Amino acid sequence: MPGTQPARGTRDFLPDDIRRREYVIRIVRDVYERYGFEPLETPAFENIETLLGKYGEEGNKLIFKILKRGEHEASGEADLALRYDLTVPLARVVAQYQNELPRFFKRYQIQPVWRADRPARGRFREFSQCDIDAIGSTSPVVEVEILSAVSEILKTLGFEDFIIRLNDRRLLDALLQAAGVPALLTAPALVTIDKREKIGRDGVIAELVDRGLEPHVANRCIELLTPDTENRTFSQLAGDPSLNDAILDHLREAVRPHPDGLVALQSLANIRSIAHGTPAWERLAFDPSLARGLSYYTGAIMEIAVEGIGSLGGGGRYDNLVGMFLGRDVPACGFSLGLERIIVLMTERNMFPPAVALGAVDILVTIWSDESRAASVALAADLRKSGLRVDVYPEADRLGKQFKYASSRNVPFVAILGDDERARGEVAVKDLRSGEQAAMPRHEVGSFVAANREPRTENREPRTENLEPRTNPEP
Amino acid sequence: MPGTQPARGTRDFLPDDIRRREYVIRIVRDVYERYGFEPLETPAFENIETLLGKYGEEGNKLIFKILKRGEHEASGEADLALRYDLTVPLARVVAQYQNELPRFFKRYQIQPVWRADRPARGRFREFSQCDIDAIGSTSPVVEVEILSAVSEILKTLGFEDFIIRLNDRRLLDALLQAAGVPALLTAPALVTIDKREKIGRDGVIAELVDRGLEPHVANRCIELLTPDTENRTFSQLAGDPSLNDAILDHLREAVRPHPDGLVALQSLANIRSIAHGTPAWERLAFDPSLARGLSYYTGAIMEIAVEGIGSLGGGGRYDNLVGMFLGRDVPACGFSLGLERIIVLMTERNMFPPAVALGAVDILVTIWSDESRAASVALAADLRKSGLRVDVYPEADRLGKQFKYASSRNVPFVAILGDDERARGEVAVKDLRSGEQAAMPRHEVGSFVAANREPRTENREPRTENLEPRTNPEP
Repeated sequence: MPGTQPARGTRDFLPDDIRRREYVIRIVRDVYERYGFEPLETPAFENIETLLGKYGEEGNKLIFKILKRGEHEASGEADLALRYDLTVPLARVVAQYQNELPRFFKRYQIQPVWRADRPARGRFREFSQCDIDAIGSTSPVVEVEILSAVSEILKTLGFEDFIIRLNDRRLLDALLQAAGVPALLTAPALVTIDKREKIGRDGVIAELVDRGLEPHVANRCIELLTPDTENRTFSQLAGDPSLNDAILDHLREAVRPHPDGLVALQSLANIRSIAHGTPAWERLAFDPSLARGLSYYTGAIMEIAVEGIGSLGGGGRYDNLVGMFLGRDVPACGFSLGLERIIVLMTERNMFPPAVALGAVDILVTIWSDESRAASVALAADLRKSGLRVDVYPEADRLGKQFKYASSRNVPFVAILGDDERARGEVAVKDLRSGEQAAMPRHEVGSFVAANREPRTENREPRTENLEPRTNPEP
Repeated sequence: MPGTQPARGTRDFLPDDIRRREYVIRIVRDVYERYGFEPLETPAFENIETLLGKYGEEGNKLIFKILKRGEHEASGEADLALRYDLTVPLARVVAQYQNELPRFFKRYQIQPVWRADRPARGRFREFSQCDIDAIGSTSPVVEVEILSAVSEILKTLGFEDFIIRLNDRRLLDALLQAAGVPALLTAPALVTIDKREKIGRDGVIAELVDRGLEPHVANRCIELLTPDTENRTFSQLAGDPSLNDAILDHLREAVRPHPDGLVALQSLANIRSIAHGTPAWERLAFDPSLARGLSYYTGAIMEIAVEGIGSLGGGGRYDNLVGMFLGRDVPACGFSLGLERIIVLMTERNMFPPAVALGAVDILVTIWSDESRAASVALAADLRKSGLRVDVYPEADRLGKQFKYASSRNVPFVAILGDDERARGEVAVKDLRSGEQAAMPRHEVGSFVAANREPRTENREPRTENLEPRTNPEP
């Protein structure tokens, strides 16, 4: 017999896992839809040439390839490959349906991707990505709307301590130029600067010199990219508009000879001023050292982080990528929320509403005897009409055993339809939490259970700020 | 540049497609959860030995196999394979988590599967299956609960004309034996009988004789398996309990010498009597000729069909399959809803509520000038708090162009924040359907739009019978 574990690096999601995932995904979708993003889904596999060469040498190796079928199987060749991310499929969709999609196409996409990475704690070969991208405009309104939506999601999920680090790729280039970093050393210098929080200011300077920078250039780098802001945390920075202004002013001097850098500063200032009055506003902090995988960003770059925890997602403007199949540039700005990480964090921090962890069933209808099976099944059908989640014990069995089964599944109530109850048109309802039992007319069971079950946040339609809860059928 | 079509036999789902799919899936999940089924998801690929040999010779050929990676890639060998159905993964899960799952495990699973079939109209290489299975009990309550849930789903979706054909595999065997069909001819005989609606009674008899049955055996077959019920349609049959009883009596005589057949008849009678008082009751019709891929069913078999359209799903009891990785029999009964077919049918029959086809945005906030961008974005943020779906035109542009964009996306309202309006704390709101425009205080825009937008069924939380609509924020 073969093993029964899922394939290496993949996971089975049992009901409790899915309830947690769905809780998060519903909030994400609800917010993105209120921001005018529309859903998109693409197939799990693409023609192999659609994916090969899009993710660099390393990426190519991590793509799962699908063997040709039939007589070609023996050739060992692959003609299809599993989706590696959601961006290349988006670029394909934008090209394929260019005449059907709106001029400003805003889509969200939450689907699994597959990478043949070495599995490790928190790193899987199948994992869900959660991307939004707004296509068709270079306006900073796009960046603000994205940051606002993501902020609203995190607040709704209960994250109170995140900040948005904001930078611009063109500013980064200008600052390194201004510091005197030779073009060839730009990339390695940024890798080092990215480690600042880990190895500290002095560590960064030492490593920059190791990498071949003159000491005064290394020092100048650190001065420009990590302005001394009186050692404030990013949370403090985010809350202090004047400090953000001070950073901008500080940088303006340095990049004056670099026109692209000035454009970037103006763009950052625009994003900040437009964000006033949105959920992103108080979380926004400039961070000239933010690099975020330099390769394809062309403008604003952003990252949402929780201090002491790290990034929960990031994104930016990338105006040359989505047009790859069209042969021309298409303006785009996107954000990828770290869905898997968020679910892990929320589980560790106990951030799910109690109902998400509770059993999914409100009441179990027991079966008294073979003769009463139809009565139990009919009661269940009626209770479901009032919106309750109802399970039926499938067999006539000792009542104690049926109660025990209900308890083991966290079902708060059981209904008993004994011969006496049926004769009187009544149902006995037992609350397994308190042990109390009461007989009541059959038609009152539904409202009794609805009124006395755990007050629960609907896990399938989570509450969002300023919305009335939609769950309880009672006023 | 590579082509931009999705891989052969797969589909991209654009926003309108997904809204339709999601509408159906929400109803399915909502009903299954009210019946105590819990969600399960398994990985897209399995170790190849988990799947090979489970689907017969033909199935093996249709499995998509994934090439080994790294140095082994050149070997042309495969070590993983894409999910071919949801039943084998369920069997694996039941074995792997046998100590964590409840004694009666009821799960629903809605995920894509992949088959290297030759694509054809309505046949795809990637398509979603939608399965429920109830594991752990041999009680007929299980069959009834499944049929009741499926009936409730179809009614909620708006299918008024379906019937449930019900049979039992053991009865089928007994009837063929009683008719004198040699064991070796059982399978081909059933294939022929299954064509009755296409080729008619006489056609069936002729084909049975062709396949080697004596003419009197062929005649006896058709007599037993397709009892003359005065040429009534199945809908008429389903509504007529006495006729169903007559069929049972008719068959009881014939199978008397076959104990398994009598057991099956009793089981069918039990299912029918327990179903009284459930949504399945009035749709239930015995059909002794229903065969449904004989291979693994061991008891009840069922199919939901719409006359003139065909099957919308089917299932049955299969007590030896789910235990395949445990090395012992595990009682199980399942049903697979034809999700893809249902969506196609509902689209053709125009069965989606208008809101599902409408645009996803309630109001587009226009941008008057670069200076007013922040005001527009802030208005959008406030409107979203009241639950509206709000898009912001990303750029200052001619208003006419912005209106036209909104119209093209079916957005009913646009908000205008001109210099005058902003100075007065007002917003001009234009109804693009009527052309009417009115200025109002900023804080009244949300309730105005909510009250005047298309009365819409929420497409993300569809109404079910006897539940209040949850969508309109107004009382």
